[in-house]
Amino acid sequence: MVAISQRAQRVPPSPIRKLVPYANAAKASGKKVLHLNIGQPDLPTPASFWEVLQKNHPLVLDYTESGGTQAFREAYARFYTEIYGIPLEPTHFLTTTGGSEALLFAFLTLLDPGEEVLVIEPTYANYIGLGEATGIRLRPIQSHLEEGFALPSPSALEAALTERTRAILLCNPSNPTGKLYSEAEVHQIGEICRRHGLFLLSDESYRDYCYDGEKFFSALELPEAEDFVVVVDTLSKRYSACGARVGALISRNTDVLNAALKWAQARLAPPTLGQIAGVALLSLPKSHYDYVRQTFQKRRDVLLEGLRSISGVVCPTVQGAFYLMPQLPVQDTDAFAQWLLERFDVDGTTVMVAPGSGFFTDPSQGRTLVRIAYVLDVPHLERAVEILRAALNIYARENIPIL
Amino acid sequence: MVAISQRAQRVPPSPIRKLVPYANAAKASGKKVLHLNIGQPDLPTPASFWEVLQKNHPLVLDYTESGGTQAFREAYARFYTEIYGIPLEPTHFLTTTGGSEALLFAFLTLLDPGEEVLVIEPTYANYIGLGEATGIRLRPIQSHLEEGFALPSPSALEAALTERTRAILLCNPSNPTGKLYSEAEVHQIGEICRRHGLFLLSDESYRDYCYDGEKFFSALELPEAEDFVVVVDTLSKRYSACGARVGALISRNTDVLNAALKWAQARLAPPTLGQIAGVALLSLPKSHYDYVRQTFQKRRDVLLEGLRSISGVVCPTVQGAFYLMPQLPVQDTDAFAQWLLERFDVDGTTVMVAPGSGFFTDPSQGRTLVRIAYVLDVPHLERAVEILRAALNIYARENIPIL
Repeated sequence: MVAISQRAQRVPPSPIRKLVPYANAAKASGKKVLHLNIGQPDLPTPASFWEVLQKNHPLVLDYTESGGTQAFREAYARFYTEIYGIPLEPTHFLTTTGGSEALLFAFLTLLDPGEEVLVIEPTYANYIGLGEATGIRLRPIQSHLEEGFALPSPSALEAALTERTRAILLCNPSNPTGKLYSEAEVHQIGEICRRHGLFLLSDESYRDYCYDGEKFFSALELPEAEDFVVVVDTLSKRYSACGARVGALISRNTDVLNAALKWAQARLAPPTLGQIAGVALLSLPKSHYDYVRQTFQKRRDVLLEGLRSISGVVCPTVQGAFYLMPQLPVQDTDAFAQWLLERFDVDGTTVMVAPGSGFFTDPSQGRTLVRIAYVLDVPHLERAVEILRAALNIYARENIPIL
Repeated sequence: MVAISQRAQRVPPSPIRKLVPYANAAKASGKKVLHLNIGQPDLPTPASFWEVLQKNHPLVLDYTESGGTQAFREAYARFYTEIYGIPLEPTHFLTTTGGSEALLFAFLTLLDPGEEVLVIEPTYANYIGLGEATGIRLRPIQSHLEEGFALPSPSALEAALTERTRAILLCNPSNPTGKLYSEAEVHQIGEICRRHGLFLLSDESYRDYCYDGEKFFSALELPEAEDFVVVVDTLSKRYSACGARVGALISRNTDVLNAALKWAQARLAPPTLGQIAGVALLSLPKSHYDYVRQTFQKRRDVLLEGLRSISGVVCPTVQGAFYLMPQLPVQDTDAFAQWLLERFDVDGTTVMVAPGSGFFTDPSQGRTLVRIAYVLDVPHLERAVEILRAALNIYARENIPIL
């Protein structure tokens, strides 16, 4: 047997998906599993998506331009200008196969192999895999649950920079912590980037999910953004359309976009149907975003209150995305999450969560954290909390050893 | 302005798409452009694609499994077993975002940065871009127009191997030359791979396009294929469905598929709609493939005869894909292709071809070659030949200098 590459052996499996075999086994045995592990919104995809596809589908489902259709990029620019108040042109958008591919192109365009991007941990797990794919290094700096996952101080951030640092990667609001970085915090990061000649790569996939009346501040609104700001965006979360696989790399820096287009040409084109129907999604009225935000704020409130009512669970109030990252009173959430699927249920139902270790470049960290996605309606979230309460009660009592 | 990466500066633009701005300018000036530059079949996408989408679309357009839905992989395995006579299981398929992503995952899984894959030149241009993205080196070995782009001899292939070679990449039938490698040639390559402990990465995207009664022989049919054979496949060409962006990495080597799944997890999932409707495509009867093959064989015949009737044009008979790669009586086909768009037309119509230089790792090679995709109906191909004849006549007479 010919041996696979070292990097393929090194790259970790997704912490969000690695427990899927246990979930499948649980379901095969008749259990119901409440999925809190994956960032897949449950609201119906807006009906206009399907209407446009039925009306406007082409005779030949052909490639689009590598950077996306003109119609899609025009709709995107109009959306940013009118809904977000950020004036952009179609030329500022490179259409990608979801936010994931925008990240891939950004890593390839901003950094050479061996160079470093600063990330705030806990961090989005797939940055690690995409970093391995592109040969770049993720240099982590910690944010802490006790401080509500606040941005590390400017001096701490600067101390984490090395000669090889080329960019700071901010996920705002944060996947996995739910932390929404304030306008002042985004300015702090921008100031450091300008001072040290770094790109600011801002993953704003969850920007529509901001609560308690807090306003989102995009890195695109920073002074001199045209020099150093590159934004990752996606339609996935905004419209419950993860399977459409359309998003964008957004920048006013033409060097970045021209170079990224060459990577885009190497994979030919992003999905055509997502672009055709995506035009309709990007044209939805403001009320859509209000509805989504209100729905998820209510869920966050219910989940936060429920988790805090469980003995030994610690969870700060965070104001973004649809994740909470509580600390659980167990030694190892990898083992606990697996145990939930393999050995536990309440009246035939259990829950699936994403263990915290996968959100750190060093998987010995985060062992007491889990990421919980509130992508279920309120009654199911309440049920999930009760299942977690019962599970933690038994797990602690039985003093179950680490698997 | 912060500087982009070295690799982003290095990666070449697609030779197939780099002339698009000139084509757009030609169209804006009122010219009609016959597109022979891009591998986008023109036959209508089968109606069942749209019917299934209308009937079976989900309420929430969610992510699928990272490796693709069970239904899609089952349909794929059934298709390979029943239509191609190659018995495969759903577990042998990793669903990808077109063949391009299957190539990306293969490069990441089979090779480490700095390692080499042997490619036969002229080669598919996007291998070069994907090689740059993954940090691997393409080691070229030449095939020659004068020999009908035949496989180099076993001794020449072995002489091209180095200590860093980990795989041989075969595109069969070849994009860009249209060369169909025979069963004996595939066995020769397989034998070299086995002897030297190399992977055989076989890009079989065009396997449905084989002419003159020649039978396609897949690398999956080689002895011990489970050890070393990895196949890239796509629905794009088979069903005129390039925009669906679905394909697969296929192997019986579980180490390869398990590792590739981790890259797949890092980008979450392939497009959902392409998978839903792709099930219907993979279930089409044999007559579909006969119809497509007969249609394109007729076109190849017309184009080949037409090209050969032009003074100074040399083109071997090849029996696969939907490309011909003739030699033109010009010094530099980059300049000639641009001139066709900028300065030439016959009654308001011109043609767009892909210059040969982009299909070589060293772009000083292939300057007299062009790739012509026969993705137009016979009358349009006949018209394209007449335009090329007139253009070459004038271009030679005017002795136009290299731009």
